[in-house]
Amino acid sequence: MKVLVVGANGQIGKHLVSFIQKGNNLEAKAMIRNADQASFFEDLGAETAVVDLEQDTDAIAKATEDVDAVVFTAGSGGSTGKDKTIMVDLDGAVKAIEAAKTAGVKRFIMISSFDTSREAIQEAASSFAPYVAAKHYADEWLRGSGLDYTIIHPGLLTNDKGTGQVNAGVKVERDEVPREDIANVILASLENDTTIGKEFQVVGGTRAVKEAINSI
Amino acid sequence: MKVLVVGANGQIGKHLVSFIQKGNNLEAKAMIRNADQASFFEDLGAETAVVDLEQDTDAIAKATEDVDAVVFTAGSGGSTGKDKTIMVDLDGAVKAIEAAKTAGVKRFIMISSFDTSREAIQEAASSFAPYVAAKHYADEWLRGSGLDYTIIHPGLLTNDKGTGQVNAGVKVERDEVPREDIANVILASLENDTTIGKEFQVVGGTRAVKEAINSI
Repeated sequence: MKVLVVGANGQIGKHLVSFIQKGNNLEAKAMIRNADQASFFEDLGAETAVVDLEQDTDAIAKATEDVDAVVFTAGSGGSTGKDKTIMVDLDGAVKAIEAAKTAGVKRFIMISSFDTSREAIQEAASSFAPYVAAKHYADEWLRGSGLDYTIIHPGLLTNDKGTGQVNAGVKVERDEVPREDIANVILASLENDTTIGKEFQVVGGTRAVKEAINSI
Repeated sequence: MKVLVVGANGQIGKHLVSFIQKGNNLEAKAMIRNADQASFFEDLGAETAVVDLEQDTDAIAKATEDVDAVVFTAGSGGSTGKDKTIMVDLDGAVKAIEAAKTAGVKRFIMISSFDTSREAIQEAASSFAPYVAAKHYADEWLRGSGLDYTIIHPGLLTNDKGTGQVNAGVKVERDEVPREDIANVILASLENDTTIGKEFQVVGGTRAVKEAINSI
């Protein structure tokens, strides 16, 4: 199974491509914005596709043509302007979803935010609310897409080394979670079709990732 | 018929409330952010409701309870930060739509942007694209809402005095249009149920507003 990783050059994306390439079941295709980001992925033996998520759906669909699943882990990041929130976190996600539909790829895994409910938008600090809103509408679009989706809602992401252990469920207590462990959760979700049509929150915890995901 | 005007304190909103109050068929309820904006509307004999569009849907639904139609003409405006685009133009619109559904109000008129298609997002200048994207998703939400909607796509808005004449159609050539004439188009749409389930572009032109809207 070949997996298009949208946002491969992010920290979760890099861990994920690395895990996929080290395993035996899957192969990764890293979607990156600039050709000079390619060497990291080429060194892992992964294919790359240079596509800016702000291009049109056709360009993304072309990169999606020969894969079996799409993982969306792109994010506008803290250093870009607020205008990028809607263009990447919402519109970029919707274009990736539509590209998957166009290319006939059913499996789609979305890396969302911890809580993207209507209530979470209202309760968010005003500087954070636009991000929560963008993720809210992206998740809504995916739920209504007809794709075989899984929506992963990670807690507060850290760059700590992964522990291989998490706590996952429809509602869990908000806590930190290493990006490396989220990459592991994505991998486990790709390998477990019982996660299709489901969404869950994930924080650092005490259960092995595979076991935690199997119990979703 | 009582009409809730969301964004009443904007320039289109002020013209609209004024037209409604001067006519005999309708009455206006002006939804405004601050109580100190009320006097303009009270002088016109219009009811007011002080609700910030960034409040939750319940607050907006409460203002919507006793009306028969909702007009959404709020906009984040050029002077606010880019983060307001998603919070007002998209999320505010969605909350107004959901509020109408909650309150059992079927009729909803959206003042959109001239072209909110996928192609228009891609072709927009990068500084304008977030606004087009926000309006695109707001329009999409309304189309799928089950409400009796009309989506009005005005050309380049000016503060020129209205002429009472426009050119309206599914696709018209992009041109300027006075805000006062758009207020007239909204009024004509409220008074003509053949506009339900339709959307159209409007620019300055040569047909009387009522006639132009009747031919939609």
